[in-house]
Amino acid sequence: MPEGGDVKARILAVAAQLFMEQGYAATSVREIGERASVGQSSLYHHVRSKGHLLYELHHAFSRDLIERLTSVIESESSPTDQLRAVIRVVLGVVESHQAEVTVFLREGHALPEGPRADIQRERDQVDALVDKVIMDGIEAGELRKDLDVRLTRLGILGLTNWAYQWFRPGGERTSAEIADYFADMIINGVAAR
Amino acid sequence: MPEGGDVKARILAVAAQLFMEQGYAATSVREIGERASVGQSSLYHHVRSKGHLLYELHHAFSRDLIERLTSVIESESSPTDQLRAVIRVVLGVVESHQAEVTVFLREGHALPEGPRADIQRERDQVDALVDKVIMDGIEAGELRKDLDVRLTRLGILGLTNWAYQWFRPGGERTSAEIADYFADMIINGVAAR
Repeated sequence: MPEGGDVKARILAVAAQLFMEQGYAATSVREIGERASVGQSSLYHHVRSKGHLLYELHHAFSRDLIERLTSVIESESSPTDQLRAVIRVVLGVVESHQAEVTVFLREGHALPEGPRADIQRERDQVDALVDKVIMDGIEAGELRKDLDVRLTRLGILGLTNWAYQWFRPGGERTSAEIADYFADMIINGVAAR
Repeated sequence: MPEGGDVKARILAVAAQLFMEQGYAATSVREIGERASVGQSSLYHHVRSKGHLLYELHHAFSRDLIERLTSVIESESSPTDQLRAVIRVVLGVVESHQAEVTVFLREGHALPEGPRADIQRERDQVDALVDKVIMDGIEAGELRKDLDVRLTRLGILGLTNWAYQWFRPGGERTSAEIADYFADMIINGVAAR
């Protein structure tokens, strides 16, 4: 089955599109197969269940996010520069996987227990990577000693994740420019000095 | 009809609950009426359409938000203190209307054209109020002159709105404490001085 990867990618792209347009509940696996031009037997070879598809959509961007955050942490940059890079990575993933991120945020609550636990594990990994950058920054004396690591992470991820609501590629600023603006806002604050 | 307000409030509470539990698409107006113990004729007296119900759920919290933000702006406080108050108000509304906010963020895209335009008008009002606080702060020399007003507002609202994902009342910190933490983070930045 030489084009197995292509078929799977096509199924996932169509699933993201249909879940986005008409919702998870209103979309059937059969409809996804028809739109992706995949025959029934091949379809059920690739798709364990509708819930698992939703998990795979999440996994597609969280795997990318975790890989890229791990490279940031393994770099030689200072913690402050790592924090800037974290914000770039998160905003970049929101940009490159906007349909998947949007579908997950709208429909993630519909997931069955098993996939939900898998996704929680991936989200925990992301949280731990961001927490490490914040803790390293405090340790190095670059970030304030009185920071609450969890709340700081929730604030930073909120600021960046929220872009799924309003960011559209091709606007006045690129996602990297917006990320740099947000990083500066969070690191230096908005107050005049 | 002396208890008209009560009936309407009951219908809206049940609608928020059902849209949250099983999704907007899977919920019928008839089902909302049955769960709210409202007879058919009374139900259709109160409910113009399912789309309009979703609009009314949004309106319930955006009206509250707009009123409270307007009081902040009309207060005598300094722009920096107004910015702190804005963050408290937004987080307070996420706390007091968590079901409505969650349903709107999940299902708002399903709205028909008319209610969607009404909601956009309310969101624009919120944006304008927050922008005014930021512009007043720049003008007064309290906030940095190089701020991009729109991006700053998107960052601040993202940081606070995102709490619908993770904030649960009864936790270690109240929403007011979290708001004060976020305000300090945004105003002063996380970098050590």
